[in-house]
Amino acid sequence: MEQRIDIVTLGVADLAAARRFYVDGLGWELSLEVPGEVVFLQVGPRAAAGAVRRAGARGRHRRRPLATGPAPVTLAQVLDSEAEVEAVLDRAAAVGATVLKPPQRAAFGGFHGYFADPAGFRWEVATNPGWSVAPDGRVTIVPIEP
Amino acid sequence: MEQRIDIVTLGVADLAAARRFYVDGLGWELSLEVPGEVVFLQVGPRAAAGAVRRAGARGRHRRRPLATGPAPVTLAQVLDSEAEVEAVLDRAAAVGATVLKPPQRAAFGGFHGYFADPAGFRWEVATNPGWSVAPDGRVTIVPIEP
Repeated sequence: MEQRIDIVTLGVADLAAARRFYVDGLGWELSLEVPGEVVFLQVGPRAAAGAVRRAGARGRHRRRPLATGPAPVTLAQVLDSEAEVEAVLDRAAAVGATVLKPPQRAAFGGFHGYFADPAGFRWEVATNPGWSVAPDGRVTIVPIEP
Repeated sequence: MEQRIDIVTLGVADLAAARRFYVDGLGWELSLEVPGEVVFLQVGPRAAAGAVRRAGARGRHRRRPLATGPAPVTLAQVLDSEAEVEAVLDRAAAVGATVLKPPQRAAFGGFHGYFADPAGFRWEVATNPGWSVAPDGRVTIVPIEP
């Protein structure tokens, strides 16, 4: 498994509020927006952050600060082949990770799996036909129609 | 506030387990280790991830998976001056962030503050005299003696 985080995804109860803050408020540019579902922003060379609508997150946790409340975060690597996805999951499991979702076809058109590191932090490893990186590090993400 | 994440820090109850997984298990190289306190690893051009020992994290949450348990995560930007730290905190607050820690001198030798984005995700903005980035994107982090 290469030493790399490609995507940091933050699960949020109120996607519109996240968009207002990062895009309207701070003026950050969108890489991809699927209204009501996800926004992606470039946050470094070869790297993106996403905010995704977190199902069922309304209610009691909604306004709790991170210091005490839940903070659903997924770290991700985008890989070139299904074989790499399987190899990374196998490797992670061999050194102490817990496989949360075995490698399988993903709704977004790629092939992916999830593991949790020993502290419980969740990683997705995936191929993504909509993901590309320009020589200058600029990430392009396009939605793939199922 | 520039569109950039420089550091993703994961708070863990068992730092030795995190080190065993990422360093011994996956073979990732350390950028900095302060034994018992923190390990930093390069995870992209200009970008690092850290695992820090989370005080009081032992006990009931220790083995809960991320999906349901707490996941203390801090995103960070490293800035060049104290004035920039203040400006970023002011800017974030102006567009809906909650300042968690006003700008002040930090134990690690820099000057920093914290805010929470509207979903509660915590950001640190800081100067850090021990942080440098080579032209090829390689991050060096050295501890500063107080």
